[in-house]
Formats: sequence, C-alpha cells, structure tokens
Amino acid sequence: MKFYDCATAPSPRRVRIFIAEKGLDIPVVQVDLRSREQLTEGFLAINPHGTVPVLELDDGTVLLDSNSICLYLDETYEQNNLMGRDPKEKAVIAGWNRMAEWDGLAAGAEALRNHAKGMQGRALTGPVDYEQIPELAERGRKRAAHFLEELEHRFSESEFLAGDRFTIADITALVSVDFFKWVKVEPVDSQNSLARWYAQVSSRPGAVD
Amino acid sequence: MKFYDCATAPSPRRVRIFIAEKGLDIPVVQVDLRSREQLTEGFLAINPHGTVPVLELDDGTVLLDSNSICLYLDETYEQNNLMGRDPKEKAVIAGWNRMAEWDGLAAGAEALRNHAKGMQGRALTGPVDYEQIPELAERGRKRAAHFLEELEHRFSESEFLAGDRFTIADITALVSVDFFKWVKVEPVDSQNSLARWYAQVSSRPGAVD
Repeated sequence: MKFYDCATAPSPRRVRIFIAEKGLDIPVVQVDLRSREQLTEGFLAINPHGTVPVLELDDGTVLLDSNSICLYLDETYEQNNLMGRDPKEKAVIAGWNRMAEWDGLAAGAEALRNHAKGMQGRALTGPVDYEQIPELAERGRKRAAHFLEELEHRFSESEFLAGDRFTIADITALVSVDFFKWVKVEPVDSQNSLARWYAQVSSRPGAVD
Repeated sequence: MKFYDCATAPSPRRVRIFIAEKGLDIPVVQVDLRSREQLTEGFLAINPHGTVPVLELDDGTVLLDSNSICLYLDETYEQNNLMGRDPKEKAVIAGWNRMAEWDGLAAGAEALRNHAKGMQGRALTGPVDYEQIPELAERGRKRAAHFLEELEHRFSESEFLAGDRFTIADITALVSVDFFKWVKVEPVDSQNSLARWYAQVSSRPGAVD
C-alpha cells in the first residue's frame, strides 16, 4: 500500500490520524498542494480528480477519498475499530461522521476556499476551476460557528461524538475544529463541553502532528 | 422499523429505491416538505436536523441520513448486496457513491435551493435559515453539467458506476440525473453511454415511482 498525503491539508490529516489510531505503518508519499502538484500530469494519472488523500493498494486499486480509505482499513484490520462492529453501530457512527463532514469540514472549506487570496479560481477542489463567491465564504463562517454550537450541545450529553467511545466521527470533528482556525472561527469560552472533548481528543498520539 | 419518507424529494428517493432493490417491506410515514412539516415540533422531536429520510429502528435508534440508513439495511439483510461484500469492494463502492453525492446530488441542491422562489431563506436543508446566493445557483448548474460529462466518461468504460454490477452508487447517480431536470440540466444527445446506462437503471422496478 501507498498513502498519498499532504502534511498541511485537513482531509489527509483525517486519514493520518486514522492510520495512527489503528497502529498501522503505511508508506507515505507527500504531495505538495501549495505548488499544485495534485494537478500535474503525473498525479492526475494516479487520481484524475486531482485531490489528496489517495490510498493505492498493492493490486493497483486506488481509493480517492478519506472515508473510502478509512473504511477499507477498518474492515481489513480488526484492531482498534473506529467505524463500528455491527450494522447498527456502523450506521450510527457513519451518521455522526457525515454530520461532522457536511456541517464541519465542508463549512470550513466554503469559508476558506472562497476567501483566501491563494485560492482565487480554486473555490472547489478537483480538476475544474470555479471562481470564489464572497457570500459563500461568509456563509461558511456562519455554518462553522453553528457547527461548534452543535458540538457543544452534543458533548454536554455524550463523551464522544458517536457515543461512549472514540471513533472516526471524532477524528472528522477534531480536524474540522482545527481547520476553522484558518478562517478565525474558534470555540467561545462558554463552550465547556466542547473544550473538555477537545482537550481529550487533541492530545491523543495520532492527533499531534 | 419505520421509514420517514417524502415522495417528492430526491434524498428519500435514494432510500426508497434501495429498499425496493433489497426486496424489503418497511412501514412508511410520509412527511410533507411542502408544508414544512419537517420543521414542526413533532418531527424535530424525531430528527432535530429537520430532514428526511429517517429510519427509526425498533429500539428507538434513529438514523438521519440516506447513507447510514442504507448501510444499516445492507449490513443487516444479506440479500441483493448493494454496498460491497469485502473491504475492497465496500471501499470502491463507497468512493463512487460519494462522487455521485458530492458532484451530483449536492450540485443539484446548490442549483435548486439557491434559485427556487419557494426556497427563499432555505438555501440549505436543516434547522438554520440561510439566504439564497444566486451565483451559487449558477455554479450548481455548471457542476451538474460537469457531473453528466463525468458519468458519460465513466459509462464509456464501465457498465455500472462502481464496476460490473448495480450498486448504491448507481442509485445516487440516477437520483441526481433525475433531480437535475428540476434545474433544467439534462444530458446532451452525444452522451450515448450515459443514455445506455440511464435506460437500464431507470427501468428497474424500484426506480419507477
């Protein structure tokens, strides 16, 4: 196997933490997004969508998004399960992970990619160029702040996002909260439950870069 | 089990087709999105996000998004597998399904919800009101047209989206292509491979409403 990573980007960080939590050792290739290496002919031959992370299996199969990669690893290696062991648990974890992805990560991406000077014409990842929409950057920041409120509410009732143990949903939420710092959306002081959870998950070995 | 559906909306249609393909018989409750029943106190008590589909299990667990619901059903009922039987197949199918979701369904939703008069102030599903962004409607239509090109390319090489058999990825893509008609984005005549696939999947029993 080969893991195409970018040490500075949020989506591959999800996979990095996941691999660390599983205790796996997978050869890594760094892709330099700042020089747009992901859009070079060489990388597009590996992933036509021009995105990281990518996991290349030994038979040449390529997995092109964080969730698919994590699913493959969790279903292949039994230790330290992060995505559920039975149908109900799998579905519940998938639901929370999805919430963290759409309300969290996607909101952060909206805010950043529609605002950052270095991302002009690159408002979406992938091979097609889309112009920035300033109103969408603003909406992304509002959604990000709302996501922090959702997390505070959830962690006032539950130790981890999907229930009483650490799962992939916590990884996605942690990466989202850290990603929001790039667009200056941060938890407020009164969000105590969020702070309790954040201290706990951000100090796990895989989360410390 | 109880399935909260809305006969006119694209996301629950994914689950409807999935249930039909599995050959399951699950009691259905219709939720009237046009009268905003999903945002009433009664429905928010079932799903605080105010969205359909929802699957309520017999123990009271609620699953709040199409993918989690389908995952639960596919992992619980072995017949007519739609999401993969081994780790690699599961991951490959999940990847194509996700592509159909982000590049397809999400693009259609961007185009429709940021444009339709009846959706003013409702540019995103869920409990928070967001204003429409006309530029985002336009971007959604461009993305939808690009998704059809991606499908044409894929179906010129592969019988179904995830490979040589019908899977959840085809359901998501079919629902997306039909959804695009609402925003007047339709396949062009030269997209023969897409037409071949569409004729095949849209005539399956579960796809015919």
